[in-house]
Amino acid sequence: MEKQVKIAVLGLGVVASGLVENLNAAKEKIKQQTNLTFSIAKVLVRSRENKEEQAKKHQLTLTTDVNEILDDPTIDIVVELIGGTDAAKKWIIKALKQKKHVVTANKDLIAQFGNELTSIAKQSNVSLFYEASVAGGIPILHTLNNSFIADEITGIKGILNGTTNFMLTQMAELGLSYDKALQTAQAAGFAEANPTNDVDGWDAAYKLMILVRLAFAKDLALKDIKIVGIQSITQKDNDYAQKLGYQIKLLAQVKKIEEHLYAEVAPVLLSNTHPLAVVKNEMNGILIESKAMGTSMFYGPGAGASPTAQSVLADILAIAQNMTNKQPVPQMSVSNLPNCEIHEEVVSDYYFLLSDCTVDLANFLEKQEVKTLSLSQTDLIEAAFVAKQLTIKQKDWLIEQLQQVSHIKQILSVVEE
Amino acid sequence: MEKQVKIAVLGLGVVASGLVENLNAAKEKIKQQTNLTFSIAKVLVRSRENKEEQAKKHQLTLTTDVNEILDDPTIDIVVELIGGTDAAKKWIIKALKQKKHVVTANKDLIAQFGNELTSIAKQSNVSLFYEASVAGGIPILHTLNNSFIADEITGIKGILNGTTNFMLTQMAELGLSYDKALQTAQAAGFAEANPTNDVDGWDAAYKLMILVRLAFAKDLALKDIKIVGIQSITQKDNDYAQKLGYQIKLLAQVKKIEEHLYAEVAPVLLSNTHPLAVVKNEMNGILIESKAMGTSMFYGPGAGASPTAQSVLADILAIAQNMTNKQPVPQMSVSNLPNCEIHEEVVSDYYFLLSDCTVDLANFLEKQEVKTLSLSQTDLIEAAFVAKQLTIKQKDWLIEQLQQVSHIKQILSVVEE
Repeated sequence: MEKQVKIAVLGLGVVASGLVENLNAAKEKIKQQTNLTFSIAKVLVRSRENKEEQAKKHQLTLTTDVNEILDDPTIDIVVELIGGTDAAKKWIIKALKQKKHVVTANKDLIAQFGNELTSIAKQSNVSLFYEASVAGGIPILHTLNNSFIADEITGIKGILNGTTNFMLTQMAELGLSYDKALQTAQAAGFAEANPTNDVDGWDAAYKLMILVRLAFAKDLALKDIKIVGIQSITQKDNDYAQKLGYQIKLLAQVKKIEEHLYAEVAPVLLSNTHPLAVVKNEMNGILIESKAMGTSMFYGPGAGASPTAQSVLADILAIAQNMTNKQPVPQMSVSNLPNCEIHEEVVSDYYFLLSDCTVDLANFLEKQEVKTLSLSQTDLIEAAFVAKQLTIKQKDWLIEQLQQVSHIKQILSVVEE
Repeated sequence: MEKQVKIAVLGLGVVASGLVENLNAAKEKIKQQTNLTFSIAKVLVRSRENKEEQAKKHQLTLTTDVNEILDDPTIDIVVELIGGTDAAKKWIIKALKQKKHVVTANKDLIAQFGNELTSIAKQSNVSLFYEASVAGGIPILHTLNNSFIADEITGIKGILNGTTNFMLTQMAELGLSYDKALQTAQAAGFAEANPTNDVDGWDAAYKLMILVRLAFAKDLALKDIKIVGIQSITQKDNDYAQKLGYQIKLLAQVKKIEEHLYAEVAPVLLSNTHPLAVVKNEMNGILIESKAMGTSMFYGPGAGASPTAQSVLADILAIAQNMTNKQPVPQMSVSNLPNCEIHEEVVSDYYFLLSDCTVDLANFLEKQEVKTLSLSQTDLIEAAFVAKQLTIKQKDWLIEQLQQVSHIKQILSVVEE
């Protein structure tokens, strides 16, 4: 039996336009496979200017009054694509309370208020889906919510920010400087005029918060995550990384160690043989480690109008298929794991770049009983090496020793296969 | 409100044992998150011998009479893990007709009879799920059925057989011969005593048939797929592949060209920079190309008791969560695309290995206007090269020319990034 589903969209920017186009393109296929017919009933715009032509082309009804949508009892699903956390939050709450299902791509909002909004959705017995908020085109939230529900996740490693990954790839493959790579990213539309949010690691941290909530049923705050941006990465680091068999990546990581979580976003040296090493330029990748499954990895476009719109559309379809159910697809709630904290016994490999070295480093490190993977010291001026299997205490101690005989220019964690 | 779901399992081999263990381990988590409690009501075994201890440990009720399960109206979900296509098919049909949902990991059965079984499931208004039948631990069928439902898939490339991938990785990385690699795979439990099904490409072809059905709503027969095994691959091919920047992989591929499908399973040279190049040893990987999403890739364990059992468990959970719905999760049906056929205009790169070459090959190929990527000819005895962008006609013509001046020892397609 055919069913008509009415959607309203808040916003008509690039993702919303992509949604309108993808929905139109897929209408027949969707109807054939699900017996569902979708119509976009209303679109909220700030002003009608510049939008009339697009509205006419796709036969969209525009409104500048959000209440025309939120108070319309015929609308089943509200799609929030305006961004920001003020109006978006207020309107999503109202929509949920009016028993409308909500789909959003709003990463900042879901990272900060996802738990509160999910509670409201539950109380109203409607669904709140936000697949597009993390890793654009990769269906990772859906997969966590479904395929891993009976598994125990022990760690996540993700390349979650396309801007920085594009920049780091350009630096490594074309030998560009940081500044030149940023300009290239801006010219290609992968970086904003003010790139702080991306290059400082905040964007990846917000996405990690959302992943952690679904994977570990745990609500993190930004302050729970150790966040380091990519500004300190130089061509020199890239040269050494390549020589040693690594790529520099901005990696978002969370590990569960006993009952503690340790979360960080930081540039690391990633082994060329690691599954995430194939994630180049603006692509994203997420690796899940779990008890039953072992290692899984998901790779795809991290952003872009069409992939993001497609994720929004997949959420809309999932909701619509469950609408007759009167029972929303279960969403994870937050449990009472202890707060995120650094576990002193975390052992890692570390890359060091030194200058003004006054000793023979191989000799020096051997005396300190530091196991090294590779050492590159052509003269006393500069040296790089990877120290293996250091605890945080051991690392701090090694830093002290090295400071007495050299100038430390860089320290990065190393992630092996 | 808590709901009790009763499962019966046909078979108690490694995957079924894994299922019992994973379900026990996850019981509390599942109950907390879904309000569902699962119990394994009955397990069908061929004979009670050797199974009594296991049954006691996990408090399982064994039966040797399948009708005690199929005629039991209290059982909600039947999990088929006996394999084969005779009894399994008969029992699954009976279970579906008795309005029981069915989960199976039976690749051969679903590849050959999936369409017929899905129709029966639909008529009975129950679900038939088979996530574990393709790429063990990778939730690829679920993803195709959900995230790609509104997208248009244009191609799939998969490393779907763990046995051959393990062998090829060992050959490439340790320089093992084909025979030695097979022995190693058998010793590691990755290859059966009779490896035909794997090394001849049939296993990968069956999995490709299932992927094609969900991705293109098209029922293929084995004869629609060009199937080439890995027996002809030598250390020499591996040496040249490495020199040229490739890895040899048994690749299952399907491409949609206009309204035609072209499907094959064959060893290819895969570029080291291709996302699937990270898929080593027994792992599997599947790359999806689609209009809206672009390129996506999914990587994970291809087999193994625990990952396979976990996929079965994810299917069970998906069904149980939809049971109150009285409406099974929609499954794709088969459309009327024209038959799979080779499209003459398919353009590809090809790797050639020649011996007894009587000409200077660089010169010869230039005269024939063949663009080459790399040519490795140290003397007249042997040479290898990659010819770029040949149509099938051009390839056949080049083969004719080369046969006049050399002995052709190997031809493989080349897959670039």
